[in-house]
Amino acid sequence: MPNVIVRSQARPDREHVDQLAEFGVATVHEAMGRRGLLASELRPIYPGARIAGRAVTVLAQPGDNLMIHAAIELCEPGDVICVAFFSPTTDGAFGELLASNLRAHGVIAAVLDCGVRDVADLTRMGFPVWSRAISAQGTVKATPGSVNVPIVLGGTVVRPGDVVVADDDGVVVVALEEAAATAAAAAAREADEATKRELLVKGELSLDVYGLRARLEALGVSYVDDPNAG
Amino acid sequence: MPNVIVRSQARPDREHVDQLAEFGVATVHEAMGRRGLLASELRPIYPGARIAGRAVTVLAQPGDNLMIHAAIELCEPGDVICVAFFSPTTDGAFGELLASNLRAHGVIAAVLDCGVRDVADLTRMGFPVWSRAISAQGTVKATPGSVNVPIVLGGTVVRPGDVVVADDDGVVVVALEEAAATAAAAAAREADEATKRELLVKGELSLDVYGLRARLEALGVSYVDDPNAG
Amino acid sequence: MPNVIVRSQARPDREHVDQLAEFGVATVHEAMGRRGLLASELRPIYPGARIAGRAVTVLAQPGDNLMIHAAIELCEPGDVICVAFFSPTTDGAFGELLASNLRAHGVIAAVLDCGVRDVADLTRMGFPVWSRAISAQGTVKATPGSVNVPIVLGGTVVRPGDVVVADDDGVVVVALEEAAATAAAAAAREADEATKRELLVKGELSLDVYGLRARLEALGVSYVDDPNAG
Amino acid sequence: MPNVIVRSQARPDREHVDQLAEFGVATVHEAMGRRGLLASELRPIYPGARIAGRAVTVLAQPGDNLMIHAAIELCEPGDVICVAFFSPTTDGAFGELLASNLRAHGVIAAVLDCGVRDVADLTRMGFPVWSRAISAQGTVKATPGSVNVPIVLGGTVVRPGDVVVADDDGVVVVALEEAAATAAAAAAREADEATKRELLVKGELSLDVYGLRARLEALGVSYVDDPNAG
Amino acid sequence: MPNVIVRSQARPDREHVDQLAEFGVATVHEAMGRRGLLASELRPIYPGARIAGRAVTVLAQPGDNLMIHAAIELCEPGDVICVAFFSPTTDGAFGELLASNLRAHGVIAAVLDCGVRDVADLTRMGFPVWSRAISAQGTVKATPGSVNVPIVLGGTVVRPGDVVVADDDGVVVVALEEAAATAAAAAAREADEATKRELLVKGELSLDVYGLRARLEALGVSYVDDPNAG
Amino acid sequence: MPNVIVRSQARPDREHVDQLAEFGVATVHEAMGRRGLLASELRPIYPGARIAGRAVTVLAQPGDNLMIHAAIELCEPGDVICVAFFSPTTDGAFGELLASNLRAHGVIAAVLDCGVRDVADLTRMGFPVWSRAISAQGTVKATPGSVNVPIVLGGTVVRPGDVVVADDDGVVVVALEEAAATAAAAAAREADEATKRELLVKGELSLDVYGLRARLEALGVSYVDDPNAG
Repeated sequence: MPNVIVRSQARPDREHVDQLAEFGVATVHEAMGRRGLLASELRPIYPGARIAGRAVTVLAQPGDNLMIHAAIELCEPGDVICVAFFSPTTDGAFGELLASNLRAHGVIAAVLDCGVRDVADLTRMGFPVWSRAISAQGTVKATPGSVNVPIVLGGTVVRPGDVVVADDDGVVVVALEEAAATAAAAAAREADEATKRELLVKGELSLDVYGLRARLEALGVSYVDDPNAG
Repeated sequence: MPNVIVRSQARPDREHVDQLAEFGVATVHEAMGRRGLLASELRPIYPGARIAGRAVTVLAQPGDNLMIHAAIELCEPGDVICVAFFSPTTDGAFGELLASNLRAHGVIAAVLDCGVRDVADLTRMGFPVWSRAISAQGTVKATPGSVNVPIVLGGTVVRPGDVVVADDDGVVVVALEEAAATAAAAAAREADEATKRELLVKGELSLDVYGLRARLEALGVSYVDDPNAG
Repeated sequence: MPNVIVRSQARPDREHVDQLAEFGVATVHEAMGRRGLLASELRPIYPGARIAGRAVTVLAQPGDNLMIHAAIELCEPGDVICVAFFSPTTDGAFGELLASNLRAHGVIAAVLDCGVRDVADLTRMGFPVWSRAISAQGTVKATPGSVNVPIVLGGTVVRPGDVVVADDDGVVVVALEEAAATAAAAAAREADEATKRELLVKGELSLDVYGLRARLEALGVSYVDDPNAG
Repeated sequence: MPNVIVRSQARPDREHVDQLAEFGVATVHEAMGRRGLLASELRPIYPGARIAGRAVTVLAQPGDNLMIHAAIELCEPGDVICVAFFSPTTDGAFGELLASNLRAHGVIAAVLDCGVRDVADLTRMGFPVWSRAISAQGTVKATPGSVNVPIVLGGTVVRPGDVVVADDDGVVVVALEEAAATAAAAAAREADEATKRELLVKGELSLDVYGLRARLEALGVSYVDDPNAG
Repeated sequence: MPNVIVRSQARPDREHVDQLAEFGVATVHEAMGRRGLLASELRPIYPGARIAGRAVTVLAQPGDNLMIHAAIELCEPGDVICVAFFSPTTDGAFGELLASNLRAHGVIAAVLDCGVRDVADLTRMGFPVWSRAISAQGTVKATPGSVNVPIVLGGTVVRPGDVVVADDDGVVVVALEEAAATAAAAAAREADEATKRELLVKGELSLDVYGLRARLEALGVSYVDDPNAG
Repeated sequence: MPNVIVRSQARPDREHVDQLAEFGVATVHEAMGRRGLLASELRPIYPGARIAGRAVTVLAQPGDNLMIHAAIELCEPGDVICVAFFSPTTDGAFGELLASNLRAHGVIAAVLDCGVRDVADLTRMGFPVWSRAISAQGTVKATPGSVNVPIVLGGTVVRPGDVVVADDDGVVVVALEEAAATAAAAAAREADEATKRELLVKGELSLDVYGLRARLEALGVSYVDDPNAG
């Protein structure tokens, strides 16, 4: 497979992306039928960020960030750069200079299956990164890879143009062609949850709200009094 | 062993629980003779929380939070929900809705040998959770387990009615019948530490404050001058 | 090898130490030719600290902090205590009392291949620690070790008198005899980066700023249009 | 909690122990309702061993095997020495000399939450060990612990007198008072499996043998033809 | 995404499968341009097996092997069953009975992102398994999943009909449509290696055989005499 | 630090190397005062090998084995090639062709902080390797490093000319200048152990052979009868 840089035209609707950002990772993941979540080892470098954007994908050699540089000119405002590697690495292939250049092209976040450095600067800039590690280990710009090919990132396939949603809970990817339906399903789910939340906050038992008592009985779970009580 | 939900009557004295909360994990662990600490992989989702409460225990199937729902009606104000699993899992079996319902019943915290989600919401609510992972991975409500049976949580036995103490240092469990003695021992330890802290802050050497010079000598540790110094 | 406490005279120039602190870990690591970084598992207990100081080294038994106590009287203002162990451990061999005593002698930070406790107190004090774990597990003061001998810490050799630089990105060690040259190289690197940053922030592509287009071509990376585009 | 050496009288019936050994770990674990399994990180040092025996339990300091020595005179023919530690360790607290002495007292195996060394010798002797690591790291005989108290080993409670069953699949513990019933349940399970095996080996589908087709349908799993087939 | 069982017609040529089995994992991986390798955590349960076969894929719930049962009737002689899960698990979802039934339908091996049990029986049977763990932890047959959909297994996409090659070095997957070209490339690679092996075994230096001396010089690597030599 | 290939003249006495090989890792490690052991993650690819030899050291880029090739012509009969990396990697930088070429120059084993491939071939050849992983992941020959400089391997410093001892228990390094003394100390230790083994095999208790009863008493460990016994 030759290494290629693909000028991808795949692009989700901005409206759906914005809705998905609002719902957040847990709701979107549920709305897709509990699919699309990236491995929980990919963690945000600072708390509180919540984003969604179009995926620009990079496949790179461990210890080498050449292909991230190559991806920048393919980025558009609102994009999220997503970087996978040929084999496991924690090297710090991403830092503040790359983020500054990406931001100048409108990129809003990075999701990396490697390390990240300049964490204090990135926090100050408010440029959120989800990564496998924090590491200052420097990298070279010497070996080839690809841009905008499908990658496996945190155990999940990410294709250029898919929607990446990320917050304190992690990262979930929504296939481009499922973005509209997922946004709708997430909205329905939130509405349903809002109704239930009202009851649960008042103290109504979730066993009753979700109708789980019959299930417990069907599963043979029995209630007993404390055997040690006087 | 049939799956059961035990209406446990075991309950520590509120006074001891409050004292243990004040001392915190490190002091309580020392006061018990360095026992009771849960594995350090169970970490708080946000810094700064410090709690103590009665343990309500749950034993559940990985990927299933049915039994956490079943435990809620057995909870009382001040309780801490403690959840172990039949085999290793990082799925996000706990989130904001469960926390809201638990809070409505007075529960003050959760300790989980699994993942947690809705971390931003839980942080905003001020509902502290100590967990093995942060993961949005959704779970079902389909398989049986038990409530208020003894569990192994982070390598340590937790029984219903035990006192769970948790802060930025991790989680320690105090057996119900040891709560009073541990609170007393912790108070004594704090008093002793206060005296020593005063000296140490002034710069008196801990070697002298703790009387360790003789030990170093007995152990054959010798002082030498820098071999490379001119 | 007998256990010894060495009254080391090795001491870097304060001026170089201060410069290295200002540059931070990523820049210093690059300035040394990408050497000297400690394993990324050694993480700060709170974000935002950035320090540099002379290493006072400790080699200790797992579960025992006697030799850290022994090291205190050899410390001078501006020093960083660096602790390695004979075998892997996550026990909490370091806490607030030790930090208070060390601070009274001018020590500004600790780098530990073990656990740390009293994390809330240390955060309040503003005493930064980089460690492998957070754990309240108590330790004894019973077995011998050494002070101010060369140690391997996070996979990197640290000798007494070396300069330890640490921030949110991790920890890097600069050999005493390389401190001046590294500070100079870091300054040059920063100047070069400043020039480039100006261009990159404006949106000039890093591919052009670093002259990487020829390399991509030499590596056989080709540009293709989206095969799926209409 | 003072450190004690308990002269335990708890002892399972030899007959049940022998039956459990024959059934092996997977069958015994199933016969107990899928309980009792130790963490899968505890692995045999060589393949092919299968044992069952009475647990003699040890609780020890990391890096110290004093209490294993203390346990030997409490061992009887057919026993299995089970060693837990106060905090995580991979040190090689067990080797050929200990095994030789234990064997002279009839001990048939060891289960260790630490490292083991002299692996070539132990293999030659045919003394099976299940451990967390293989490590030559030497240990001292200096700090106290307990013998024949309940321990948590690989996340499971082991009490003196319980039956430990171990083979290539790992280790399972059967509570003393459940040994007879578990042996009976395991026998019943094996008989049932033998009947089914006969059918399955002939190629009858497990879907039919276990009657799972209705379940698939009830779960909404549908059969579809290959969408890409010509 | 509804759960489906696909009656896949995708099928590689037997001839190419046999050739790929002969070349083994390392050579096939190289012949594909260093792609297709599964994560090195997937290890064989016994040494010495080397197989290649058509992938029948399963996507299942952790702790549940229902869908493996459902896959059996879709298997044909020479197939390899490949099982991924919705979230991380080490439960022993595969054992001797499943293997016996699969073998009756001609299946030659299993690749599992979970645990395996009955390892002694599987070894005796000569049914090779590559898995993430060995664990007797029992599983249920209660929740839905899919058969013969594309899965991510060990970080690599496996589609039904792809060729799975596995040996002591791990597992590599060859896309169905690349099987012929990969077999040819592997043959060419082996021929080239045979020529070089002849020289290398005689002691001719690989630096010369591969023509690397110029590269070392270009990279600025210099030869120096031992600075400590007399 | 420029990358260099050092023509090291450091060379231990063959007699001491042979003695150290005979004693094995555990005894040599003890004879050095429990120093020199490499991390237990470095494991042999097949059981039963035991070797000792002069270290030829390599420091390389992850995913690149160029410098291993460069090291071959500096090797002499009886040497052990020891390879560390600039940052963590599990790539398979070593395989059968390299081993064949090294063997032609007399090298007897490899110790690698990376992955190894062609494991079946290496086993058949009887060329032992201790490595962090088994992985077929291919590597390039593109970036510079050094040969015969001091390296940190598995957390321990290895210098060219040191003696590396390896067997089923792991790997230990003996400094060149300590080889003679360590061999002598190991011989003394073996003699002492032989005497004790004779007693222990007969069943004399290690508590008595090592004189540990007084220590237990001094540590406050008390003997109690089974509280649950009738």
